[in-house]
Amino acid sequence: MTEKAVYLDSNASTKVHPAVLEAMVRALKDHHGNPSSSHASGRAARAAIERARSQVAELLDCQPGEIVFTSGGTESNNQSLQGACFAARAEARRLVTTTIEHPAIDEVCSWLERFGFRTTRIGVDGKGRVDPHDVESAVDDATVLVSVMHANNEIGTIQPVARIATLVKKKDDRILLHTDAAQSVGKIPVRVDDLGVDLLSIAGHKLHAPKGVGALYIRGGTNVERFLHGAGHEGGRRSGTEATPQIVGLGEACSLARQDLEGRGVRMEELRDLLEHRLRECFPHAVIHGDTEHRLPNTSSIGIPGIDAVKLLARLDGVVEASTSAACHSGRVARSAVLSALQVPEDVARGTLRLTISRFTTPDEIHRAVTAIAAAARS
Amino acid sequence: MTEKAVYLDSNASTKVHPAVLEAMVRALKDHHGNPSSSHASGRAARAAIERARSQVAELLDCQPGEIVFTSGGTESNNQSLQGACFAARAEARRLVTTTIEHPAIDEVCSWLERFGFRTTRIGVDGKGRVDPHDVESAVDDATVLVSVMHANNEIGTIQPVARIATLVKKKDDRILLHTDAAQSVGKIPVRVDDLGVDLLSIAGHKLHAPKGVGALYIRGGTNVERFLHGAGHEGGRRSGTEATPQIVGLGEACSLARQDLEGRGVRMEELRDLLEHRLRECFPHAVIHGDTEHRLPNTSSIGIPGIDAVKLLARLDGVVEASTSAACHSGRVARSAVLSALQVPEDVARGTLRLTISRFTTPDEIHRAVTAIAAAARS
Repeated sequence: MTEKAVYLDSNASTKVHPAVLEAMVRALKDHHGNPSSSHASGRAARAAIERARSQVAELLDCQPGEIVFTSGGTESNNQSLQGACFAARAEARRLVTTTIEHPAIDEVCSWLERFGFRTTRIGVDGKGRVDPHDVESAVDDATVLVSVMHANNEIGTIQPVARIATLVKKKDDRILLHTDAAQSVGKIPVRVDDLGVDLLSIAGHKLHAPKGVGALYIRGGTNVERFLHGAGHEGGRRSGTEATPQIVGLGEACSLARQDLEGRGVRMEELRDLLEHRLRECFPHAVIHGDTEHRLPNTSSIGIPGIDAVKLLARLDGVVEASTSAACHSGRVARSAVLSALQVPEDVARGTLRLTISRFTTPDEIHRAVTAIAAAARS
Repeated sequence: MTEKAVYLDSNASTKVHPAVLEAMVRALKDHHGNPSSSHASGRAARAAIERARSQVAELLDCQPGEIVFTSGGTESNNQSLQGACFAARAEARRLVTTTIEHPAIDEVCSWLERFGFRTTRIGVDGKGRVDPHDVESAVDDATVLVSVMHANNEIGTIQPVARIATLVKKKDDRILLHTDAAQSVGKIPVRVDDLGVDLLSIAGHKLHAPKGVGALYIRGGTNVERFLHGAGHEGGRRSGTEATPQIVGLGEACSLARQDLEGRGVRMEELRDLLEHRLRECFPHAVIHGDTEHRLPNTSSIGIPGIDAVKLLARLDGVVEASTSAACHSGRVARSAVLSALQVPEDVARGTLRLTISRFTTPDEIHRAVTAIAAAARS
């Protein structure tokens, strides 16, 4: 029997944690009631949802009432940006964001142009970091919202969100601060007050919960229009019958994420550093992208000049699972907008692998992966 | 040990079918890959999703490529109405719907007023049926879309959607036809070509799939804007990483629904008729709401003059689980807009129970429920 492939694509999606699966199976079996129903089955489903809401709130250090469950990070981002814009005063028509956001921010900004909103996209330095002063300069009294991702999905660079929030709020405290924290929550400590944000997006499947569930933190008192219209669930903030089993799974995943978060981060970082160290032994000209000082502990984006990463990964099929630098969202293969923003040379970008580990990655897997990558690059 | 409560609230939400649960557990364990990833884990998740798409398409008798997965009925409805309106030519600014739609239609229409769209709501007869000629008269060359629910959630009345579609399309074939089929799919045959619709919404949790997943049928060639913006999943029609386990569950539920659909309908109808027969023996003045000729086989809305249905159900807690006529969406208790539209007298509306069975309901449960309801009404 062949060994299982080494999964190094956890920023694309993570494995569902066994305890999350167990909690979900229980909810799938027991909580058939509609959480809006007043009978015992309905109340049991409601209680399970409210427990999950507390679990998410504990991870983010906010009030349970500030958490709205959604269908995932994309919905949380759509809700944040569209919700803020459509609730804004008439003269506030500008969004400020960065050049390295996920399409679930970038495309929403483009969509909002149709309704008269305009977006300023701030560039990043060679490590993928935004200068808070650039954001400060860009905002004006026509700005509705600033959205800066907490950590980048491709290179792992962590943005100075807290500093940005301080500077922006000082200039005009009516401006809302949003961060897409899909990649950071569960990997590093994320506390909404430390970040100073009004809105924060979570995607369940990035932290060992299932795909198809997410959450949105909405700071108490923040005025956002609802995005899904209907029977007014989630305290009137998001319509649609609550996805009880998935919500229970997300709650459990947040609870697990909270346990030994920093210790787990250190262990992931050690493994990631081992991975990079060994790869650089094999490929002395390899380049690490991003900001090694401010970086997610699980993420390595490494450019190996002279190789074709797409072909390399195809050769590794069944042995190592990872991503290229290319934006493979929904099957499109285009040059990574993130690496372009970092002005990474073409041949390095072509040779870039994104290797992202998780709590389940073992040292043995790291060694197997490096051996396989080195062999495939020579073949 | 006390017996389990008799669950007669399947129009609110259904129990997850054991085979659906099994398929989901498999997907939760095995399909951690991101369906957009090109490696084996990603391709396995993609294959599972495409299999589910075929299962949904088979139930609706359409092409798999015409199915888009969503987070549920509310999203499917939002996507349909907003998507059609925002894709419409500038002069098309009217929506035509009915007075007995679900809030996930009605509230979307109200939201769209903000963007200059106007809604005409067609009334129903005493049985809750729309006259197709009323719809025909209401549409004009400024009409974008007609949305008429296939079967009503409270009273089960099945609308003459096919006839409406024929008349509307004959008048102006640019007008899109949408139906919210959340309550009918899985209970009665629903074939998109028989209905003549361009858009049709499904909610998983109404047919023994989990909460938090749905589908939208979009007839090939129909021009609708996307609702969730981002990385362009679902063939560019709906962004957000596909909810693999829930999608697999919905596919399985559709496959199960298709097996012996009509026979199961007959059996549910017999049980529902038994329920009504026995209740009318206990309450000779009880009134059956809706259209007994065109009605979902699982739905009974029965008004018992002189009782307070809310209090009655509270007394039945733990014994019989059902709904009142009241719109209990998200905990609000208000008089049912549907019963108002039917001009049901106040005391009958106050005494109305919605009793909705499923494939899992047994004759024994019917008898137990009737006995309990009769006893509670006397106490």
